[in-house]
Amino acid sequence: MTTMLTASVKKRFRDIVDDAGYVCADAALRVYDCDGYTLARSRPELVLLPSTTDQVRRIVALCHEQSIPFVPRGAGTGLSGGCLADGIPVMIGTARMRRIRSIDLANRTIEVEAGVVNLEVTRQVSGAGYYYAPDPSSQSACTIGGNVAENSGGPHTLKHGVTRNHLLAVEWVLPNGDLLTLERDAASSGFDLLGLCTGSEGTLGIVTAAKLRLSVRPQSVITVLAVFTSVADASRAVSAIVAAGILPAALEMMDATVIEAVRAAYGYDFPADAGAVLLIELDGLEVQTATLAERASAACREHGATEIRTATDAEQQELLWRSRKRAFGAMGRLAPSYCTQDGVVPRSRLPDIVERIGEIGARYDIRIANVMHAGDGNIHPVMLYDESDPDQCRRVLAAGDEILRACVSLGGSLTGEHGIGVEKTPLMTDAFGADELAAMADVRSAFNPSGLCNPGKLLPSEGRCGELRAPRPRGGG
Amino acid sequence: MTTMLTASVKKRFRDIVDDAGYVCADAALRVYDCDGYTLARSRPELVLLPSTTDQVRRIVALCHEQSIPFVPRGAGTGLSGGCLADGIPVMIGTARMRRIRSIDLANRTIEVEAGVVNLEVTRQVSGAGYYYAPDPSSQSACTIGGNVAENSGGPHTLKHGVTRNHLLAVEWVLPNGDLLTLERDAASSGFDLLGLCTGSEGTLGIVTAAKLRLSVRPQSVITVLAVFTSVADASRAVSAIVAAGILPAALEMMDATVIEAVRAAYGYDFPADAGAVLLIELDGLEVQTATLAERASAACREHGATEIRTATDAEQQELLWRSRKRAFGAMGRLAPSYCTQDGVVPRSRLPDIVERIGEIGARYDIRIANVMHAGDGNIHPVMLYDESDPDQCRRVLAAGDEILRACVSLGGSLTGEHGIGVEKTPLMTDAFGADELAAMADVRSAFNPSGLCNPGKLLPSEGRCGELRAPRPRGGG
Repeated sequence: MTTMLTASVKKRFRDIVDDAGYVCADAALRVYDCDGYTLARSRPELVLLPSTTDQVRRIVALCHEQSIPFVPRGAGTGLSGGCLADGIPVMIGTARMRRIRSIDLANRTIEVEAGVVNLEVTRQVSGAGYYYAPDPSSQSACTIGGNVAENSGGPHTLKHGVTRNHLLAVEWVLPNGDLLTLERDAASSGFDLLGLCTGSEGTLGIVTAAKLRLSVRPQSVITVLAVFTSVADASRAVSAIVAAGILPAALEMMDATVIEAVRAAYGYDFPADAGAVLLIELDGLEVQTATLAERASAACREHGATEIRTATDAEQQELLWRSRKRAFGAMGRLAPSYCTQDGVVPRSRLPDIVERIGEIGARYDIRIANVMHAGDGNIHPVMLYDESDPDQCRRVLAAGDEILRACVSLGGSLTGEHGIGVEKTPLMTDAFGADELAAMADVRSAFNPSGLCNPGKLLPSEGRCGELRAPRPRGGG
Repeated sequence: MTTMLTASVKKRFRDIVDDAGYVCADAALRVYDCDGYTLARSRPELVLLPSTTDQVRRIVALCHEQSIPFVPRGAGTGLSGGCLADGIPVMIGTARMRRIRSIDLANRTIEVEAGVVNLEVTRQVSGAGYYYAPDPSSQSACTIGGNVAENSGGPHTLKHGVTRNHLLAVEWVLPNGDLLTLERDAASSGFDLLGLCTGSEGTLGIVTAAKLRLSVRPQSVITVLAVFTSVADASRAVSAIVAAGILPAALEMMDATVIEAVRAAYGYDFPADAGAVLLIELDGLEVQTATLAERASAACREHGATEIRTATDAEQQELLWRSRKRAFGAMGRLAPSYCTQDGVVPRSRLPDIVERIGEIGARYDIRIANVMHAGDGNIHPVMLYDESDPDQCRRVLAAGDEILRACVSLGGSLTGEHGIGVEKTPLMTDAFGADELAAMADVRSAFNPSGLCNPGKLLPSEGRCGELRAPRPRGGG
């Protein structure tokens, strides 16, 4: 690797973070060469692990002064390569910024540093009956800073929303080292910079701390598992549930391939002809959830459910959820590797996209299983392959792109919760017009005029970005 | 008025909108000299009323070409002067853009042009059991375009959210005449430009159409009115209700002055010692609302409610709500004029801000009544005065500023739902640091580099804006 960093600059970085926060040994750097998007790898020259916001500011200011590109990183659980070094010499990790700054139960808020793990937030307040609602599958590892960058969701997004809906304030180091502190409250004043920051995938600076809204644990939770013979039937049930004014906390679907994998791996007793399974979680007051569960079950029966199981206690629920949560693990039995895609279609188009995915899989000779946050229309096709076979890798990438283009053509979008990262930047021109992309490039330039902060992510590739970044003609018409 | 517009430019504007959309007669222009913020008036030179998005684009492109400042206007019900001409020659009104473009009940969406009145959206779908949730007090007059610009809320914001939470897509003419079409879906991809547009108060362009989320009418609504001897007691009840995990659809408070006005105007039989009244609305399934109403009532009794009235049918509810909805009308009996302020404090600080408002009113010798969206901590102090007395006007303005500064110092913000407009721009430096304001100015410059689109609004005054707009040093540290 050609170094971009002189010895004197390296020394200045080391002086900021001390030895404990300075990672340059080749073996140690290996940990940082990819994130959850394992189809691309690239090692940074240096990883810096600051322990305070002030250290982050000083690192970023030095990058700015020396024109050194840098990339922020949380836990590296992202699935679209958003924190991939990809030719970027300096990686700034938040792993050492794990302080809980304050907990205010009366106002239901918690302020944490960016490196605090998602699940740790809930652990801090669960004794008092509270929890932090956004629950990505990686919640035992992923960090709040990464959650803000990706606007992370989870199975409970349908009712409880994504990170943006639970974020009250951020401390945000801009690409020039300036520090912004943004609060939302219930109020709207000025431009919604907090909203803009959320989901910007580390391209507008580094969030170093966040104030989050805490939620009260629901009094009652009921989980319903409904078995169908086809995805089409299950999709109609999903639409019927929502149309009936029922807003489940979660509304998940698995298709036949996933069911088969789960049955084979864990011995679940799904019927042999099960073509789709819905997992429906209702939460709220006791008086409410029982009625809602009955109605949701009725909607499932009306649309052809062949079997319905209901769990009202935590142990039974755990059992039902396990089929969903262990689904990815079960895939391991079907193929050496798997790659999970992430797209969105209108709820009513779920049968169409599943059919299209079947066609695409057949054409590329890639087996594809489907896990879906069905209530949100958020699909996760899991492509099964062998990563030691370059031809299979190529076909997986091509099939994934084609699936996402199909989502867009059905009126959906490129990502529900995994972000654009490096993986989907070439597809942005499919999802957005030139004017929309130019407006996004203008926004990025407003915050990141030098382009040093996480280049190559979110917006189309460098060449294209360069084009977009240039002042566009403002002539009317 | 010194004209900025030549005869030839005027002719070009007239050619775009035809006679029906061209307003230049002095008498006709008078209608457009202020909005709901009646403390400032200023007439535009020309009002253009385009009937299509393409006409809006051509008008804006011509303004851009000729460097003519312009201001967008919906129904002019805004309360902070956001659509005041204020030296701006061209006003672009959306009054003729009233088409309902499509209704899709299966996906619960409606697409309307910007000039469609808020309540009309609900009227279009109420037969099928749907409604549009954001309900500003002006909902029978205000337009969807204006709602997007102000990110409007209403009494039901506490549970059902503001405009941003119900906005799925916009058609947005940029200040150079380019057209953006932004969709959200359930997804996050790219920067949240839709969120940025919402609440930008017409400073980033003109929204010409919007796709909105429709809500299902709740099966059951129960309204509870609770009388307290003090605002402090009522505030504690508010906190207790929310802490109990109850999320009312509305949670409104009125103080003793409002109660007195309502009693005097309409003969309501509130107890003579009533110091505060809470209006609590619960919605949801029947099985749920009865329980919630009982629990909310219990919380009120625990915190000193002296009387509780419950209404379960629409007629009784109307009676209870009337005291709140007619409160502003009742003020008319107390003084010739009134000015409603709009600020936010954390819920737990409601007693503090009401006490501070009392002090401020006494100091400026202005009688102030308090109506509050208490659940959101959103206060609306109503200042009673005589607008024919310049000294009273001066004192009202000064008292209003001081109240908003007090909100900020208590950890709140300058506006809950009325926007910054021209009214509060001087206070932005109290609420935001120089870096935050510079970031906002950068964002505005990215969309509105010429500064022609609604100058003088939202960000601090022209001089200050000019300063902010200049490229700021990006030096680190």
